[in-house]
Amino acid sequence: MLTLTLKPHEERRVRAGHLWIYSNEIETDAQFRTIAPGSLCRVVDSRGKPLGIGYVNPHTVLAVRLLSSDARATIDLAWFERRLHAALALRERLYAQPYYRLVHGESDGLPGVVVDRYGGILVVQVTTAGMERLKPLLIDALRSTLRPDGIVLRGDGAMRALEGLPADDEILGVVPETVEVVEDGLRLRVDLREGQKTGFFFDQRDNRSRLQRYVRGARVLDVFSYVGAWALHALRYGAASAACIDASASALDAARGNAALNGHTLETIHGDALDALKSLRAAERRFDVVIVDPPALIKRRKDYEAGLAHYAALHRAALHVLAPDGILVACSCSYHLDADALQRVLLRESRQVGRRLQILEQGGQGPDHPVHPAIPETRYLKAFYCRAWKG
Amino acid sequence: MLTLTLKPHEERRVRAGHLWIYSNEIETDAQFRTIAPGSLCRVVDSRGKPLGIGYVNPHTVLAVRLLSSDARATIDLAWFERRLHAALALRERLYAQPYYRLVHGESDGLPGVVVDRYGGILVVQVTTAGMERLKPLLIDALRSTLRPDGIVLRGDGAMRALEGLPADDEILGVVPETVEVVEDGLRLRVDLREGQKTGFFFDQRDNRSRLQRYVRGARVLDVFSYVGAWALHALRYGAASAACIDASASALDAARGNAALNGHTLETIHGDALDALKSLRAAERRFDVVIVDPPALIKRRKDYEAGLAHYAALHRAALHVLAPDGILVACSCSYHLDADALQRVLLRESRQVGRRLQILEQGGQGPDHPVHPAIPETRYLKAFYCRAWKG
Repeated sequence: MLTLTLKPHEERRVRAGHLWIYSNEIETDAQFRTIAPGSLCRVVDSRGKPLGIGYVNPHTVLAVRLLSSDARATIDLAWFERRLHAALALRERLYAQPYYRLVHGESDGLPGVVVDRYGGILVVQVTTAGMERLKPLLIDALRSTLRPDGIVLRGDGAMRALEGLPADDEILGVVPETVEVVEDGLRLRVDLREGQKTGFFFDQRDNRSRLQRYVRGARVLDVFSYVGAWALHALRYGAASAACIDASASALDAARGNAALNGHTLETIHGDALDALKSLRAAERRFDVVIVDPPALIKRRKDYEAGLAHYAALHRAALHVLAPDGILVACSCSYHLDADALQRVLLRESRQVGRRLQILEQGGQGPDHPVHPAIPETRYLKAFYCRAWKG
Repeated sequence: MLTLTLKPHEERRVRAGHLWIYSNEIETDAQFRTIAPGSLCRVVDSRGKPLGIGYVNPHTVLAVRLLSSDARATIDLAWFERRLHAALALRERLYAQPYYRLVHGESDGLPGVVVDRYGGILVVQVTTAGMERLKPLLIDALRSTLRPDGIVLRGDGAMRALEGLPADDEILGVVPETVEVVEDGLRLRVDLREGQKTGFFFDQRDNRSRLQRYVRGARVLDVFSYVGAWALHALRYGAASAACIDASASALDAARGNAALNGHTLETIHGDALDALKSLRAAERRFDVVIVDPPALIKRRKDYEAGLAHYAALHRAALHVLAPDGILVACSCSYHLDADALQRVLLRESRQVGRRLQILEQGGQGPDHPVHPAIPETRYLKAFYCRAWKG
């Protein structure tokens, strides 16, 4: 097996527990660029001390991800099975029903792969050349560990393109067009093949549950509703009404379908979120609880300023339709926007519109999306529950 | 009324929403030191533009706290009643029963006062000379708003001493020796006069509730248990056993009494937390869930290094008695220790003992202790739910 040597002092992040090594941290020669993307490699520090075993892509800035800190580890079926058993043990402890993120990449010791579980169906996103090479072992381990009816291998995503991987989906076994997720007693139909990301956003589950104490009798607005999960939780917890805004007509169709499936009705507003919020304001519509849960508006660091302005505009528009003493649920899944920066946006916008803000609760991604304490990049979701009062 | 003028450019923090002004930010002359501590004052910026109304103590570094951004506001009974109504409206929305923090100082627009509600009894901590002067209005407003049976005015606390206030408690109306708190269906007896802080720690309520999904069938250890609230929640949620460590024999007495009150039994271990954890390790006792919820170990910035070392030693000792795949609940109520620093401690200590750490959930203080987004000092509680696995 290939051995890669780090430059002097470049082992510090890895010694602290991180799993990533950048190309400029590695002693490279002309041969380096000829390594087949995704090859397994041993990594040693500048004095030759072993740091672990991983895989390398010589064409990406993030060149190596470590699979094990044991440089003598064998990455075989049994290794994958041990990792999957550890991941499964946590989720089975957390949830009574099999709807959750089963593998959250680095945080579960499996860099480059995400697996979401929808009962008997697994949706797998492999994002690196290294994990793509190991995919046969991964699939075999998923089969032996979970005995799924079917597996969807999603090919989309910017990461795969960066790593030079094909964008095609693959279907293994039997996969229906849609599946049903059960969350806190709600049934939600999800399109696994055409839906966003892996089809559903398990990461907000705990934050949706938090709605319970805020929505009784309330008029609720769900901005960027997708298939209506927030709005339906609100209705289940006793909201007087719920309206969903989304730019996707098919998402709103699904939201209405999900409402019917649970014996609820909801209003849908098709269009751009900012435009829709402005129209609601102009029509003097007011809501007691407004949830703003946009897609990542800052995908890359260079989008920071534009994305920040976008978050600010959205939250200001949301505050404009918020009833006196209302609750704003302000979310961001942009890793590049940290919680402090989002809080500053909320403070500034609330002062602009003459509201006092109290941050009541601050949620993150659910526990099936664990944070790796040495890898800041594994923490991405923020949800602020804010009361906007006057006085 | 007195008018205080800020030095040039010193209005920025206040304009952003903060309520505190330090003595070195004010244009002062020889007269300044002669102002009676706690006097009301108007505050203007260096160009004479009004910033608000507050109270001043010329003998403390934190000299002014603003009560209102309206410099023409009248601070009278009606003003206090409006603030209390706003505070109460939030808590009544949050909780079905009257056990909570009713006023969380600056976050509720009432700098220098904390009020905890135990049914018909209010426990009030006034921490500044300014609020001490306004106390008659505050008490009247509490009486007209809540009609309490009794009020305890706690005189202890380092802040009161700094502000030159007396340390004696005052009792108004009828206050029993102990009261009962009902939390998530558990009954907990609390000593309002001799207990720590206001007698009970409402701020951890949501974090205690989070135990539910981690403790079924588990052996649970509650380090710094005080009256046993964490341990009792664990037992209620199906823990196989619970043990409490505390340095106070009377706290452990109360914990045993609270267990009996709820039909549970628990083990108590009297002694210093570190010593007790070391003894448990030596005896090869292991626990599936360990909760470490110490008092603030970093009270002042100058205690930072010593306090950090203390947190590290505690969490390492806790990891030593944690069963394979166990859950560590690591808390800090030290404002000076931010969440990132606590996370680094947990990462380093877990690596020292050969465990992988996953941060599953991160809780803060409950919503009856709101965070003021312009005042970082109002956010202080951290609770990390971590899984410590091997693999």
